[in-house]
Amino acid sequence: MSLVVQKFGGTSVATAEQIHRAARRAIREKLAGRRVVTVVSAMGDTTDRLIRLAREICDAPPRRELDMLVTTGEQVSIALMAMAIHAAGHEAISLTAAQVGLVTDSAHTKARIHSISAERINRELDAGRIVIVAGFQGIDPAGEITALGRGASDTTAVALAAVLDAEVCEIYTDVDGVYTADPRLVPEAHKIDRISYDEMLELASLGAVVVHSRGIEFGTKYQVPIHVRSSMTDSKGTMIVPETPGMEDIVVRGVTLRRDLARILINNVPNRPGLAFEIFDRIAQHHIVVDDIIQNVVNGGSEVDIDFTVELDDASETKAVCEKLASEMNVGTVVADDQVSKVSIVGVGMRSHTGVAARMFRALAAAGVNIENISTSEIVISVIVRREDGEKALRALHSAFELDKGP
Amino acid sequence: MSLVVQKFGGTSVATAEQIHRAARRAIREKLAGRRVVTVVSAMGDTTDRLIRLAREICDAPPRRELDMLVTTGEQVSIALMAMAIHAAGHEAISLTAAQVGLVTDSAHTKARIHSISAERINRELDAGRIVIVAGFQGIDPAGEITALGRGASDTTAVALAAVLDAEVCEIYTDVDGVYTADPRLVPEAHKIDRISYDEMLELASLGAVVVHSRGIEFGTKYQVPIHVRSSMTDSKGTMIVPETPGMEDIVVRGVTLRRDLARILINNVPNRPGLAFEIFDRIAQHHIVVDDIIQNVVNGGSEVDIDFTVELDDASETKAVCEKLASEMNVGTVVADDQVSKVSIVGVGMRSHTGVAARMFRALAAAGVNIENISTSEIVISVIVRREDGEKALRALHSAFELDKGP
Repeated sequence: MSLVVQKFGGTSVATAEQIHRAARRAIREKLAGRRVVTVVSAMGDTTDRLIRLAREICDAPPRRELDMLVTTGEQVSIALMAMAIHAAGHEAISLTAAQVGLVTDSAHTKARIHSISAERINRELDAGRIVIVAGFQGIDPAGEITALGRGASDTTAVALAAVLDAEVCEIYTDVDGVYTADPRLVPEAHKIDRISYDEMLELASLGAVVVHSRGIEFGTKYQVPIHVRSSMTDSKGTMIVPETPGMEDIVVRGVTLRRDLARILINNVPNRPGLAFEIFDRIAQHHIVVDDIIQNVVNGGSEVDIDFTVELDDASETKAVCEKLASEMNVGTVVADDQVSKVSIVGVGMRSHTGVAARMFRALAAAGVNIENISTSEIVISVIVRREDGEKALRALHSAFELDKGP
Repeated sequence: MSLVVQKFGGTSVATAEQIHRAARRAIREKLAGRRVVTVVSAMGDTTDRLIRLAREICDAPPRRELDMLVTTGEQVSIALMAMAIHAAGHEAISLTAAQVGLVTDSAHTKARIHSISAERINRELDAGRIVIVAGFQGIDPAGEITALGRGASDTTAVALAAVLDAEVCEIYTDVDGVYTADPRLVPEAHKIDRISYDEMLELASLGAVVVHSRGIEFGTKYQVPIHVRSSMTDSKGTMIVPETPGMEDIVVRGVTLRRDLARILINNVPNRPGLAFEIFDRIAQHHIVVDDIIQNVVNGGSEVDIDFTVELDDASETKAVCEKLASEMNVGTVVADDQVSKVSIVGVGMRSHTGVAARMFRALAAAGVNIENISTSEIVISVIVRREDGEKALRALHSAFELDKGP
């Protein structure tokens, strides 16, 4: 008998009516003869509300206690979901991570899954029940309650799908799939029918957070097809699947814009071993994430200019950290530019097509967009542009790679 | 090293400020050199809110799922309490029932404690931590989450105090102790310094619900001194302790009024074996609690009148049940009187003093209160009176037994 894992995010179980709707979806699959496991997130903004409550009590709550607190949100949801299925006349049982045996490491607030036991779930499925598992939570080998980190109910769902050998892992959310670009910025954007794990991972890291990255990584590792779809309609969404040869026919799968970035430039750093490490180590100590690092040799090789991007919110702190460091070492000057955005194109087709970068730069030039910086990886090309050019650049690339023509 | 168990009810942890106050009490005991275990209820009206949420989803939620749902309230509280202690610079750890090993039977929504393991708690205490245990919840031998029933955080606290051999179990609440009568009705009422378990049990069952009955039963069984006191002040409250010989010097410890009762009278029931059983069995099937049952033989022994009280809210349903039964059996008439109250006097001194009932009836007569019915047990005498006489009767008895003179 085939098995389906359905995951309902917080926006899909925010009200009693939405919980009933999710319950009906689970029941429909059951009536179609499938074994059904659902993974549920905390209702609506519950997790944020709990974290606010914690901050009212304590500026820096111990992470263990934070996990003890926030995992209650999912426990509420699974109980209500089981009740909704019961109200509709069907059998269901809710299970916490401890009851499932979803074991993680002990890194509270960002724990990673070590193992999942299928035993209890299979026993309940054999008894004809719909099984409802709490997303986001785990238990460490010592029996401590852990949380997998924000958005990690996706991870729970895909990991369960892998362990249970599910036919598909359905991620129900408030959008109806993954788009070639953000439809709010590019009206011509269309829904992507099929996308590879690698492409989806890149899109997710570039801001298209429809499915959480860790979930996609699990999908990749265990080859679980992931179906991202709307909880409000019955239309098909986007299938995230293993890459097939035909996928490379499409040069670019999607384009993205990360709007609010800042670019930090450290000029005239002596070109000696270890200095770059010192700079980025110091920034990391402040829990600031950096990206798009570029280093240019200047002054005949005696010095380098180091250039990178950070989230706009982190710009002033990063600048202060770098200035302090520069003054300690008595080297370089620090410049922060808080008016930049990043535009990227993503596609496995880049591997087999040539001239993709040239085509990208030509389109941007034709649109009158100046490129400040370029970075590339195997299936991504990103450029840093002035923030006022961001949306124009995005639309130009969407059109240049013929994404507005539809599938 | 002496050990104290402190229990904070929902009204004592309803806000961040109250949680901090509770945390300070725990820390104070710790700094005084004691080992401290606190038991915490759900914040304010959380449990009611969760039950309302369940009813929105399902008219008759499965009890297992109800327990899964409502036990989250205590999990939130213990995490926040641990954070508050941490914020004040001390070490604390929160533990769920599963983590403690508080094992109950499988009677969801009203589970009973089977056993408690002291191992984990002692390990954390040995490490110098204040241990915070979730009240109200348990885990059954199969690992299912259970709830002990409303008000049962008291039970958790006293049971823990028994297992850990605590010096005292402190119950912090929104009143400052147990009173000789409800101070809202009898302004002369005063706080009782010491009361025996038996007296407290009777007072609790007669409506003075300062400590939950099951908690007192645990106290009796394991001889745990229980200190009921206010979470708002530092003044001493009421000690609930094993009975001592001196206690019998006081004839009456307290007086109570149960205001909203109804009296059901079934007349002319044939006096044959089994009929009383049939009547009360039928009522019990409707989950109606009856009290003060009296049976009088009439008509030279051929018939009996049966008389009992129920909660006012249950009056019309009880009358309907009895009328249906009377019509099925073609016997008797049913009369419901929904204008009665019950006034009781409670005290272990009744065992050794004579003439207590006479003194009670004289006082009521002097106050012009008519007695409709009398029932007695070893340390309680109760009378049924007209509702409009209830408070007058209460005050007359409080004065007649010299309770307004203070300890």
